[in-house]
Amino acid sequence: MNAEIVCVGTELALGEILNTNSAWLARELAEIGIETLHHSTVGDGRKEMADAISHAAGRTDFVIVTGGIGPTPDDITRQVVAEVAGVELVRDEPSLAHIRGLFAGWGREMAQSNAIQADFPAGSRIIPNPNGTAAGFHMPLGRAHIFVLPGVPAEMRAMWKDTVRPYLCGKTSGVVITRTVNCYGRGESEITDIIRDLMEPGRNPLVGDTAEDSIIKIRLRATAGTIEEALSLVAGTKAEIAGRLPDVVFGEDDDTLESAVVKLLRARGLTVAVAESCTGGLVAKRLTDIAGSSAVFIQGVVAYSNDAKTRLLGVPAKLIEKHGAVSAEVARSMAQGVRDSAGADFGLGVTGIAGPEGGTPEKPVGLVYVAIASESGVESRELHLRGDRERVRDRTTKTILNILRLAIGNIE
Amino acid sequence: MNAEIVCVGTELALGEILNTNSAWLARELAEIGIETLHHSTVGDGRKEMADAISHAAGRTDFVIVTGGIGPTPDDITRQVVAEVAGVELVRDEPSLAHIRGLFAGWGREMAQSNAIQADFPAGSRIIPNPNGTAAGFHMPLGRAHIFVLPGVPAEMRAMWKDTVRPYLCGKTSGVVITRTVNCYGRGESEITDIIRDLMEPGRNPLVGDTAEDSIIKIRLRATAGTIEEALSLVAGTKAEIAGRLPDVVFGEDDDTLESAVVKLLRARGLTVAVAESCTGGLVAKRLTDIAGSSAVFIQGVVAYSNDAKTRLLGVPAKLIEKHGAVSAEVARSMAQGVRDSAGADFGLGVTGIAGPEGGTPEKPVGLVYVAIASESGVESRELHLRGDRERVRDRTTKTILNILRLAIGNIE
Repeated sequence: MNAEIVCVGTELALGEILNTNSAWLARELAEIGIETLHHSTVGDGRKEMADAISHAAGRTDFVIVTGGIGPTPDDITRQVVAEVAGVELVRDEPSLAHIRGLFAGWGREMAQSNAIQADFPAGSRIIPNPNGTAAGFHMPLGRAHIFVLPGVPAEMRAMWKDTVRPYLCGKTSGVVITRTVNCYGRGESEITDIIRDLMEPGRNPLVGDTAEDSIIKIRLRATAGTIEEALSLVAGTKAEIAGRLPDVVFGEDDDTLESAVVKLLRARGLTVAVAESCTGGLVAKRLTDIAGSSAVFIQGVVAYSNDAKTRLLGVPAKLIEKHGAVSAEVARSMAQGVRDSAGADFGLGVTGIAGPEGGTPEKPVGLVYVAIASESGVESRELHLRGDRERVRDRTTKTILNILRLAIGNIE
Repeated sequence: MNAEIVCVGTELALGEILNTNSAWLARELAEIGIETLHHSTVGDGRKEMADAISHAAGRTDFVIVTGGIGPTPDDITRQVVAEVAGVELVRDEPSLAHIRGLFAGWGREMAQSNAIQADFPAGSRIIPNPNGTAAGFHMPLGRAHIFVLPGVPAEMRAMWKDTVRPYLCGKTSGVVITRTVNCYGRGESEITDIIRDLMEPGRNPLVGDTAEDSIIKIRLRATAGTIEEALSLVAGTKAEIAGRLPDVVFGEDDDTLESAVVKLLRARGLTVAVAESCTGGLVAKRLTDIAGSSAVFIQGVVAYSNDAKTRLLGVPAKLIEKHGAVSAEVARSMAQGVRDSAGADFGLGVTGIAGPEGGTPEKPVGLVYVAIASESGVESRELHLRGDRERVRDRTTKTILNILRLAIGNIE
């Protein structure tokens, strides 16, 4: 079975924001065995929208439309779908009451313009929106079924998972699942050289890879009659890859370095404290992104100024004077200081020059020192990172999280 | 004048890689006064590709196609365009010699499959590729002109800039620019109710809006003969909007709440220190995302445990015992404590329950207290936020950054 995706929004058509919904939906459709043959993106123009929707409805099984069901005058997707279908919009009173209720919960009165969000094409089924006022709808159109969802990714994804995906699963046979094995610490070509024989075309699961921001994701796509068969195919190849890349594979699917670290710390009953300069809270932020991190994360200190390093972390002023704030010695002292202060099993220290200002010929932008303190002493590493401020901060954070991950594995 | 963009590639259609070419080209086209009405993405299927190209050529002025002109058997864009145009492919000997020369330069022999890259539809003009073997081409098709470029972004962009854009500039007159006015602190429908008269269709600049993660961006699109005229049109509407939404407008274009705060602090010579519990470093991270923040950000403390709140921020243990760690009193004490410790102009305190665990009937997930300490005393606010951990942390951070932004404006 085939699908088409139509994304509506002038800001998408003009390229002002990147369309991530389209790729996300195509991957979701592929997982349940539905191939996306065509994606369209159109602005808020009535004619272009009607063209795209009616072409799609004439040549595919399922049309997924996102965007244009908000409360503002340029949100006209519901009207256009009704016109293409040749039906009227009908007010749904329970939906109106629901929207009023949402506003009441926020302590505000519903704007009159929101009432349009309770209007749906006659003969459509409402797709509830647990996170907002824009409910979607589903109806037959041409030779297809059309599903209209909001453009806001978080809302669209929840509605897809709650309502649309379960419905479509009942209509298809056979499954295609995609799982990933996540790697860090070696380059993409080094990794693909090691698993090249698994990457042959035609293999099931088919093995490919993508690299983004230093994380290499090995993608396994398995085709089978049932989900159990597909999962079993994937499991065998996963085990093979993990065996060939010890220390490099840190997780699967949505696992991140920080989620892997928090999981390991919890499993071992260990704790961590963090002292940051150039990363400015990013290491603490990533660790505490993970639900349940409060059991393992004791404290973080963002010590930007020299004075704060001395006051909060006990880094001797003389040490800073002698070696400079960006030095292995200061990173080590920060790691030790925060470990002692928190009474944690691990202390992490980060100091460096994230840029764009602050570099010198001796200590250029991208020079970073990271350190880890544990029962077995303090270790530090000097990094030379390329790229802008965001990239330097990201790579530094990944490096120290990975050092922590490997250190947890070495604790007796 | 109008354009359509057609992107070819199975990995795009299946959502395995994100399509960035489409948005990039649309922005480039907008800059030279050409509006993109429709984007399509199709796989390597002959029928879908021919459909997309012939529909586009029948209803627009310029069709830009990317992808499918490599040397492999699934690269069939050149064949499909020739078929749609009803012409033959013709070998171009100078192109073949050029490709052979590129391979010789890499010390390799040209694979026979690369010869196809010297074939072009009869009547087309070749678009040179300075960075690879995939030359593009340009020809009239239907009522349109079609431009075929490779899918590799770096090659496509260079060819666009060297050849296609200069050609199109000669065909168009006028410019279209888009600017945004960024708002925080009121709902989308409240804001659009206040500026509804400015959002009339046909107005110049055309005014629309998008809402994402509580930030409302009002988009102004101006069409004019010159860039100066367009900027002047935009400036008038910007001033009108800012006048109607005082305190709500915090910046323009790429400005974020954190960049607005850092800019204001720098301009006033003021400093800030941050004490965080449930946001876990996110407030510090956002402030230090901004280049130049080291002049205004003194320190941050992530005090997850009660003990860390007492030790690092001087929050009395008895206060925590009496009111609980999640309370207005503790948020105020954290703000005051970090302000005193840092000697900063402002101290921020955040404590709450980000979830998914840790909520109780009296103190549910989403209950957050934020506080700000300054020379004029300490103020706190109680928030009731909905959504998952990430959303609660994001909304909390935006709320406290906005409170700081407004407080800076009130300093004498």
